[in-house]
Amino acid sequence: MTGLFITLEGPEGGGKSTNRDYLAARLREQGVELLLSREPGGTPLAERVRELLLSPSAEPMAADTELLLVFAARAQHLAEVIRPALARGAVVLCDRFTDATYAYQGGGRGVAEARIAQLETFVQGELRPDLCLVFDLPVDVGLARAAARGRLDRFEREGLAFFEAVRQTYLRRAAVEPARYRIVDAAQPLEQVQRALDALLPELLERARG
Amino acid sequence: MTGLFITLEGPEGGGKSTNRDYLAARLREQGVELLLSREPGGTPLAERVRELLLSPSAEPMAADTELLLVFAARAQHLAEVIRPALARGAVVLCDRFTDATYAYQGGGRGVAEARIAQLETFVQGELRPDLCLVFDLPVDVGLARAAARGRLDRFEREGLAFFEAVRQTYLRRAAVEPARYRIVDAAQPLEQVQRALDALLPELLERARG
Repeated sequence: MTGLFITLEGPEGGGKSTNRDYLAARLREQGVELLLSREPGGTPLAERVRELLLSPSAEPMAADTELLLVFAARAQHLAEVIRPALARGAVVLCDRFTDATYAYQGGGRGVAEARIAQLETFVQGELRPDLCLVFDLPVDVGLARAAARGRLDRFEREGLAFFEAVRQTYLRRAAVEPARYRIVDAAQPLEQVQRALDALLPELLERARG
Repeated sequence: MTGLFITLEGPEGGGKSTNRDYLAARLREQGVELLLSREPGGTPLAERVRELLLSPSAEPMAADTELLLVFAARAQHLAEVIRPALARGAVVLCDRFTDATYAYQGGGRGVAEARIAQLETFVQGELRPDLCLVFDLPVDVGLARAAARGRLDRFEREGLAFFEAVRQTYLRRAAVEPARYRIVDAAQPLEQVQRALDALLPELLERARG
């Protein structure tokens, strides 16, 4: 068994958590063994690194520091949670993974893609998500939703240009490798988003069982 | 001006802090601009990463996680403290740096040297310490001194074989590149260690002013 590694990506306010839970419920109905997680984080130690990454701080965080912290948390998450789950054949549904690093640290912060790719291989070896669902929506819509939730984290305080670059990075990555990405229009009403997920289910179940 | 970057290394209980302060006092008497720091840490944010690295935890920390956290803290320390100090021509005296990563994560934990070298170049580019003072002493002597100080951190709880590998890594690195390393016999009485540091002073002053 090798499991199936599905990630959910997209800008702020795209409904990744809600839709992850929806997809999880549909897959569970079919008797699939699931593991739900998120990044940065996913283990107690990695969640402490997440806290460092997200809390606003007076000291500016160097771009390399941010990038290395992201991959430190990821190395822990992979070792303790994701690799063991995939090894026992589970379907892993993870809210953000390395595509988010390309989008936020690469597109957003301007870290060169080659530097991210170097750490990706360093930490993950050959492991890549089998499928990445990109919940796409216009930046202003996402930001308005995120702001409505309350206190903004260190990333949510960035400006429009940052989030536009994040969005374009996701779309570009999806366009380059369409077999591994599905773009979901997250600006639609939730019911329509969930119909789009329903349409994906047969393929997911086939791959999870294959 | 390019400053002078001096690191103090060695196993537990080798007197690095005491001797760093002694060396700092001698250099200050000569009117040298000094910056004293330590790793992991050296900035408020990097000290929070240090806390993650040193606190004993129920969750085993993956070797890659430890390595990436060390370099995340280092990237921050370099950006905020070390590079600016060197750029204004200061002498930086730093308690531990990347030699410690080779010794602890490489020798101690068994991470391949090539993996450490890859992150070293990733984070530091060409920057290396101008001089590394290795305070060397037998493992049992160092551990007895460290234990006498009280509560042991996550590294100090390791066994003799770990610290023997740490010590041998320092000695091997010093042997390979003698121009950049000085081994100080830290098992001697403190007065004799300080006479050895006094003997180094003329060279340090010449390089600091050169």
